[in-house]
Amino acid sequence: MKSHNFYAGPAILPQEVLVEASSSALRYEDGLSIMEMSHRSKPLAAVFEEAERLIGELLDVPDDYKVLFLTGGASSQFYMVPMNILGANQTAGYVDTGAWSTKAIKEAKMFGNVNVLASSKDANFNYIPKDYEVPSDIRYLHLTSNNTIFGTQIQDFGNPSARLVCDMSSDIFSRRIDVSKFDIIYAGAQKNLGPSGVTLCIVKKDILGKVERTIPTMLNYETHIGKDSMFNTPPTFPVYVCLLTLRWLVKNGGVAGMEKRNQAKADLLYGEIDRNPLFKGTAVAEDRSKMNVCFELIDDSKNEAFLAAAAEANCIGLKGHRSVGGFRASIYNALDIESVQVLVNLMQNFEKKHG
Amino acid sequence: MKSHNFYAGPAILPQEVLVEASSSALRYEDGLSIMEMSHRSKPLAAVFEEAERLIGELLDVPDDYKVLFLTGGASSQFYMVPMNILGANQTAGYVDTGAWSTKAIKEAKMFGNVNVLASSKDANFNYIPKDYEVPSDIRYLHLTSNNTIFGTQIQDFGNPSARLVCDMSSDIFSRRIDVSKFDIIYAGAQKNLGPSGVTLCIVKKDILGKVERTIPTMLNYETHIGKDSMFNTPPTFPVYVCLLTLRWLVKNGGVAGMEKRNQAKADLLYGEIDRNPLFKGTAVAEDRSKMNVCFELIDDSKNEAFLAAAAEANCIGLKGHRSVGGFRASIYNALDIESVQVLVNLMQNFEKKHG
Repeated sequence: MKSHNFYAGPAILPQEVLVEASSSALRYEDGLSIMEMSHRSKPLAAVFEEAERLIGELLDVPDDYKVLFLTGGASSQFYMVPMNILGANQTAGYVDTGAWSTKAIKEAKMFGNVNVLASSKDANFNYIPKDYEVPSDIRYLHLTSNNTIFGTQIQDFGNPSARLVCDMSSDIFSRRIDVSKFDIIYAGAQKNLGPSGVTLCIVKKDILGKVERTIPTMLNYETHIGKDSMFNTPPTFPVYVCLLTLRWLVKNGGVAGMEKRNQAKADLLYGEIDRNPLFKGTAVAEDRSKMNVCFELIDDSKNEAFLAAAAEANCIGLKGHRSVGGFRASIYNALDIESVQVLVNLMQNFEKKHG
Repeated sequence: MKSHNFYAGPAILPQEVLVEASSSALRYEDGLSIMEMSHRSKPLAAVFEEAERLIGELLDVPDDYKVLFLTGGASSQFYMVPMNILGANQTAGYVDTGAWSTKAIKEAKMFGNVNVLASSKDANFNYIPKDYEVPSDIRYLHLTSNNTIFGTQIQDFGNPSARLVCDMSSDIFSRRIDVSKFDIIYAGAQKNLGPSGVTLCIVKKDILGKVERTIPTMLNYETHIGKDSMFNTPPTFPVYVCLLTLRWLVKNGGVAGMEKRNQAKADLLYGEIDRNPLFKGTAVAEDRSKMNVCFELIDDSKNEAFLAAAAEANCIGLKGHRSVGGFRASIYNALDIESVQVLVNLMQNFEKKHG
């Protein structure tokens, strides 16, 4: 029996993606597994071309951007971004909305000046700061669109006066975005795009080549742009699974379709959290994430009982991150609303028993 | 029908590994695909622990070393090695044996002094330089154990007077090695270890932390040592397939078993190359690789005819790299001698028809 998968990442993938990935892991072309084929072979070249094209179509990526498949996760983009586009005497603005942005700030300081424009650390990152000034002379403004650990999400990027760089690891492809506002968008694949082992970067090409420092070849975005993500041997199977997920996205209404689907799931779950007298949400309501729903029992002595009930209902991955506690239900694109309903039923049964 | 897979990498994997990988890609535990499970879950922690342990056992890795699973391929180690262990005023010795070592030299120059002690560039890298002096004051001597493109291989590391750093991407696990001679061994997984998307590093721990420069967190080996390769989300599925391959290695006699098996395959194929009047090997005989067998037709106007005959015999991936031309048969651990025999038969039939 298949569990209801609420893992924060690596996370749920669409069932039809798994079926096809499993089949291709055994046999793809010429009787070979896709894992044992050269990245220079025609079938693999076709995989990369289609994946890049579908991302361009799904997110309406302008022509002067390049879609890249890299490795090393968002954690590697924390330093690659400033290494490539922040001059030693330039300043970047960062908004600190949790563990990941804190790490991004730490790495950026190795390359230039960092101005932390706002932070929600004062309230354990349970909200998204909004009323901060953006200095006119910053090279870029770095944002984290969704904070997996704390369950907050930027609802609207507005019309920022600075160029944006954004870590979208945990909500890319979950809603429509205007790529033209961003100099760089990056995202670890392992939430809405595919399995772990690939990092998606969408880079505005004309911002590159302007810093003076020496950049190792593999760390220069221009290297990968010039070779269509095939400068070195790329993670072929993870990229292939991303392609299957992208095809599923297209078939299911694209990002607009996902946005609608995700809103319905979030409404259902937050509705129950707000209704059920035993539970409360941990994030400020207007900043609640539609990807990672963080909540807790008002009486936390019942935590273990709730997790045990969850296990019995085949709900996996609900334990909250240690820095927040309580529970976290990650409800990424691939999760069906039926799984959210199972969780809601679980909360209602828990109320009947313990309320 | 399964083809005979001579791809240089990503390359052939054992059939039983593919069967199990395919199954786990669909369902592993709790009805979930292994790709959609958290790297913090118990099953994934067990995968990483066992993979690390098996590598330690197979290569007899001393206790003061750490086995790491990183990403970015050998191409990323080209800069990570000097960034971590070569001081700005120190000198490293490099032996230039082909395209990959040339790239390693280029990256190392960004961090310290590089002394290219020997090169076989004068003969299109068709041999391994041997009679060069190793200065006593170099920080390390960098070698490439096997040159995938040119079909040469270091047969014996001898007793070097310097500490060694070695790119073993294309022959690790193919033969016994004495790890204690090396400060760092690195290898892209996609030849003898698994699919692309993982890089194996074996690092002597006490060499770290001695350079003055600022190192981004993700690029510091110490970061990954401290977190058992789980500082960030690792490429879980590729590492899992590596584990399956490691188990296959253990079951098939370990590296000593592979060494014997690889010797038999190499003897068979080089025997035919030397016997058949239509063909000749491109590498100097004593430096011939047991992993990548490079050869050519003496009359190269028949190249297309040979490749067509190969395709008809379901032999895949035999076209030589453009910088050498001719043909290349990669005969990694997982390739059965039966596939080499098919190639030998093909060469003999070609002789009958065109000789």
